[in-house]
Amino acid sequence: MTGTDAPHSEFELPQLYRLHAACHTERPPGHPRGSCGAVGAQPLWDRLAKTLEAKGLTDIGFTASGCLGFCNAGPLMVVYPDGVWYRPTTPDDIDEIVESHFTHGQRVDRLVMVLTRR
Amino acid sequence: MTGTDAPHSEFELPQLYRLHAACHTERPPGHPRGSCGAVGAQPLWDRLAKTLEAKGLTDIGFTASGCLGFCNAGPLMVVYPDGVWYRPTTPDDIDEIVESHFTHGQRVDRLVMVLTRR
Repeated sequence: MTGTDAPHSEFELPQLYRLHAACHTERPPGHPRGSCGAVGAQPLWDRLAKTLEAKGLTDIGFTASGCLGFCNAGPLMVVYPDGVWYRPTTPDDIDEIVESHFTHGQRVDRLVMVLTRR
Repeated sequence: MTGTDAPHSEFELPQLYRLHAACHTERPPGHPRGSCGAVGAQPLWDRLAKTLEAKGLTDIGFTASGCLGFCNAGPLMVVYPDGVWYRPTTPDDIDEIVESHFTHGQRVDRLVMVLTRR
């Protein structure tokens, strides 16, 4: 469903962001549900936020997110509306996602998390 | 771009969730960036999580989110891949979104936040 083909909707809905990245942040130390795979992810998201700002990509939303539900997969980012789940591990991975996907619309296949829902 | 029409992508990407809701959670008391419009939202998200579970809507992702960027708009939820931003204020609003949008694919126009990006 989109704003244009939704049944019974009375208006077309503009998208607030061209792309919107939700980035899994780690649980704080001592969290009752324990740690998860997002440990160590924060430097990656910091780089992402700074790179988006430096490149003036103001049409890309960036949101820190609670658990995205695939805790063993490591640092996770999901990009909507594409629905692409990335598992970056290095600053270079972040730069490649920004350059290829966010700038040129080309998915970075090597960083895609391919999982079926549990 | 989607998994099927993305240039230079080598495989089709299955979607992990039919719909994925990111819900703005409030900043804790004393947060250096101050409070924001999400104050009081938590009971709404609790109801959403419980309703999704009770109805067995396991194909709907639910993620607590950091600031979504429209702090004056009140409790916010964005639903992807549709890109629909909702501003629910009561438990009945949550129930209507679950019944209409999440179950029958019909956007709840009266609860949609229509804003242009600042």
